Amino acid sequence: MASLYFDEAEIGQLRTAGPYLVSSEEIVEFARKYDPQPFHTDQDAAARSVFAGLTASGAHTFAILISLLSKTQPYALRIIAGLGWDELRLPVPVRPGDELNLEVAILEKRESKSKPDRDIVRNQMHLRNQKRETVLQCINNVLVSRRRIANG
Amino acid sequence: MASLYFDEAEIGQLRTAGPYLVSSEEIVEFARKYDPQPFHTDQDAAARSVFAGLTASGAHTFAILISLLSKTQPYALRIIAGLGWDELRLPVPVRPGDELNLEVAILEKRESKSKPDRDIVRNQMHLRNQKRETVLQCINNVLVSRRRIANG
Repeated sequence: MASLYFDEAEIGQLRTAGPYLVSSEEIVEFARKYDPQPFHTDQDAAARSVFAGLTASGAHTFAILISLLSKTQPYALRIIAGLGWDELRLPVPVRPGDELNLEVAILEKRESKSKPDRDIVRNQMHLRNQKRETVLQCINNVLVSRRRIANG
Repeated sequence: MASLYFDEAEIGQLRTAGPYLVSSEEIVEFARKYDPQPFHTDQDAAARSVFAGLTASGAHTFAILISLLSKTQPYALRIIAGLGWDELRLPVPVRPGDELNLEVAILEKRESKSKPDRDIVRNQMHLRNQKRETVLQCINNVLVSRRRIANG
């Protein structure tokens, strides 16, 4: 699989990963530890909630995005460090049985003023369910190695 | 504990939760599932990495923030729904033995134009370690019930 330097990356290039199958057991286990609200941890209470069924914690949905991020095809970026996340939205809840796929597109490339060997790439991410509804979207900023160093 | 309506919330009001003690076992367990990079899952590999020791996945640090968010004192907000997260940054890594505390301040109040019973509150969040270094900061937008309904 190609691992791209900043110089090789192009605006709009798309990479994908998935599917990630979400089980009710995983939703409940994650939520019991980090987000123990009844609509994340209890089938019956969830059925009576505004969501009419079990839904994953937003923190869990974000963790699933992270787990897919290292598996994107057909390319990865030569990332030196993450700079942070912007405009993170969770428009549709994740439910048991969902099959999630990640789509990452290069939104913007920006040369670093302070560092000669690395630059900034902004990535637009969409995590979608089997109905192609977006369950999580965000922008991720990363530092990427500038160029391939010639040998010798 | 007070649970505040939009009308009762004031800019700058601070609420806190913690401490949350982070163990190496928890760091490794979370990372094995969602972010299996050697500096999150393997003591020896982590010791040789740029971080010089085990560090928590950013997704894990975010999950810890979520776990503290429902425990804030001396007040909570009457939240109807979350609207999303902005400017999420992870300036300092979380390490085994860290004691994390959450500080949430009301940054902005905005009346909803479309809904008569709810408005938007922007919260500034800082998750800090025992040295008061910020390990995660972000802004969270929530819909909050507008006012207490008088009885009768």
